[in-house]
Amino acid sequence: MRIQFNEMKETIRLAFIKAGMSEVKAEACARIHTESSCDGVYSHGLNRVSKFAEYIRTGLVNSEGEPILIQQMGSIENYDGNMGPGILNAQFTMDRAIDLASAHGMGLATLKNTTHWMRGGSYGWQAVQKGFIGICWTNTESCMPAWGSISSSVGNNPFVMAVPNGDSPLVLDMAMSQYSYGKLEVTRQAGATLPYPGGYDKEGILTDNPGEIEETRRILPMGYWKGSGFSILLDMVASLLSGGLATAGIDANNAGNCGGCSQIFMAFDPEKFGGSGFMEATLKQSIEHLHSAIPETEGGSIYYPGERTILTRKENRELGIPVNEKVWNEVSVLAGKSREGVL
Amino acid sequence: MRIQFNEMKETIRLAFIKAGMSEVKAEACARIHTESSCDGVYSHGLNRVSKFAEYIRTGLVNSEGEPILIQQMGSIENYDGNMGPGILNAQFTMDRAIDLASAHGMGLATLKNTTHWMRGGSYGWQAVQKGFIGICWTNTESCMPAWGSISSSVGNNPFVMAVPNGDSPLVLDMAMSQYSYGKLEVTRQAGATLPYPGGYDKEGILTDNPGEIEETRRILPMGYWKGSGFSILLDMVASLLSGGLATAGIDANNAGNCGGCSQIFMAFDPEKFGGSGFMEATLKQSIEHLHSAIPETEGGSIYYPGERTILTRKENRELGIPVNEKVWNEVSVLAGKSREGVL
Repeated sequence: MRIQFNEMKETIRLAFIKAGMSEVKAEACARIHTESSCDGVYSHGLNRVSKFAEYIRTGLVNSEGEPILIQQMGSIENYDGNMGPGILNAQFTMDRAIDLASAHGMGLATLKNTTHWMRGGSYGWQAVQKGFIGICWTNTESCMPAWGSISSSVGNNPFVMAVPNGDSPLVLDMAMSQYSYGKLEVTRQAGATLPYPGGYDKEGILTDNPGEIEETRRILPMGYWKGSGFSILLDMVASLLSGGLATAGIDANNAGNCGGCSQIFMAFDPEKFGGSGFMEATLKQSIEHLHSAIPETEGGSIYYPGERTILTRKENRELGIPVNEKVWNEVSVLAGKSREGVL
Repeated sequence: MRIQFNEMKETIRLAFIKAGMSEVKAEACARIHTESSCDGVYSHGLNRVSKFAEYIRTGLVNSEGEPILIQQMGSIENYDGNMGPGILNAQFTMDRAIDLASAHGMGLATLKNTTHWMRGGSYGWQAVQKGFIGICWTNTESCMPAWGSISSSVGNNPFVMAVPNGDSPLVLDMAMSQYSYGKLEVTRQAGATLPYPGGYDKEGILTDNPGEIEETRRILPMGYWKGSGFSILLDMVASLLSGGLATAGIDANNAGNCGGCSQIFMAFDPEKFGGSGFMEATLKQSIEHLHSAIPETEGGSIYYPGERTILTRKENRELGIPVNEKVWNEVSVLAGKSREGVL
C-alpha cells in the first residue's frame, strides 16, 4: 500500500495536533516524519508517529519547549532544548550552526536537554540543501553492550556527515550498532536472516538470526570494538561540549528514548575554502573515481552515501510512499480519520 | 627482545639524520616513532622507520618542508604542508588548532600537501595532554574496495577523537578498514587466523584467513557499508576544508603512501563548556557506568579507547619496548650502529 506525500503529511499533522501540539509545530514535525518515510527511512517516519504522539500526550516531550541560548562565543552557541520536540530543536540548532558558518566559515551549535531527533540524516540534508557541509550527532540512552560486555552500557549514537553536491549530495547517517532493533524486527517478521551477523545468541555466539539477538539484546557494534569505542567518544564529546547529559545520565533520567540527550551540530561553508570551482572539481573527480571501481557483481553499481536515497525519494514522490497498512490505520485513527477520510 | 625507550629514540634519531634530516627535526620525528612503539602501535613506530628514511632519501618527503599559512579566518587556519614530514606538519597543525581553541573555544586547522602522519593517535594524545578535546583525520591513497566493489577506490582514512581525563584520557584511533595490512601480515606469519572475517577470498567469500585477503587485496571496511561510507565522507571533508587532494587526487599524485594528503585538526577547550567541575563529574559518572557493565568473561574488564594504551606504555617504559630483532638490526644499521654499538 502506498500513500501520497501530502496525504501522509496532512494525516501526521492532524495526529500531532490531536496529541496537543500547536499547528505550526505539528506541521514542521509532520514534514520531517513524512520526508523520512519518503526517503525510505520508515522506522523514523510514519512508523514513529504513534510513539511521538504518546510522548507529547504524556509530557515526556514538552511540545511547547523551545531552545534557549545559554552561551555564545564567536562561532559557537550552546542551547538548552527544554525537552522540546527533538526535530524542532535539532532543525533550529543546525540552522544556527549554518548561520554561524555563513559568518565565520564554520559554526558549532549544541543542544542539551533535548528529545529524540528521529532520523539524524534530516539535519545533514538540511545543511546540504543550504549549500553547507554538516556534521552532527546525538547521544542516546544505553542500548548496546560495549565491546567485552554483555549488558547495555553505550548508546547507538547516530553520526551524520553531509557534503553538498547539487541535486545529489553525499549524506552519511550511521548508527553505531550494525543493525537497528527495527531492522531485527522487520527481518524476523519476514522469516529471514540478516545479511551479516548482527549480535549474539544465548550461547554468546555471533548470529544472523534476528530473533535470537532480540532475546539476548546483545546487538553488535559496527566493526566490533570500533563502533563501541566510537560510541563512547561521541557520547563524551556531545555531553562535554553541550554541557548536557551523557548516556549514563540519560539512563538515570529515565524520560523515554533519548529523553534529555545532548547533540552537536557543526556546519562549514565550503565556498570559503579551496577557492573558486575547487569543490565542484573535487566532487566530480572523486565521484567518477568511485563509480569507475569494478563492481562486485557484473553490471552492479557502486553508490556513495545518499545517492540511492535520491532514487527512493523520487520513486516514492511519484508512486506514493509504501506504508504498513496497520501502521497507517493507527495513525489515521490518531488523526481523527477513518480509512475512508475524516470521521 | 626489548629495547629501552631512550635507546630506541636515539637510534631512530641517528637513522633520520643519516637519511638527511636536520637534528631538530630528526629528534622530533624519532620521539613520535618511539612513542608509537612504546604505546604498542609497532606498525607505525620502529617498524616504519626504514620506509620513512627511504622517503626522506628519495625526496618523496621534503625533509625541510614546513607548513605555510594560506588562509586565516577567526578560529580557522589553512596550511600548505609543502610535502614536509607528516609528523611535524601534523604536530604543528594540531598545536595551531589548540591555540585557536584556547582563544575562541574551538579551533579548526587544516593541512594540504602533507605526507604520512604515521600513527594518527599521536595527535589525539597531543591534544589531551594539553587539556583539549581533539578530533582529527587524514585521507590516504586508495587501499580498500568501496562497498559493492572489488577494486580499491577508497582510503582507510584514520579518524581520531580524544577527550582529556587526567592520566587516563580517552583516545580513539580508528582506521576505516576492519584490519590493517600490517595486522594481516603479522597474523599470517604467526600461522593464525583473524579473530573475525577481515576481507574476501578468491571466490568472493568473507574469510578470516589473512593470506587469502592479502592475495585478493579485498580488505573489509569496518561495519561493511558503514566504514566504506564513512571513509568517503571523511575524504570529501578533508579535501574540501583543506583545499587539498582527495583520495582520487592522491592516487593520481603517485608520491608514496599518503603523498600529498589532506588533514583536518579540530580542538575544543572543555573548560569553556559546561561550567566548573562538569567535565570531571561527567567523565567519572560515564567511566563508572562503563566499568560496571557485565563483562563477557567472568572477571573480565571493559575498557574505553586509550585505557589499555596507558598500561602498555607503562610496561614498555619499565621493561623496554618489544622489537622484532630483524627490524631493530636494520634500523641500527641505518643509524650507523652495529648490534654492539656505534660502528
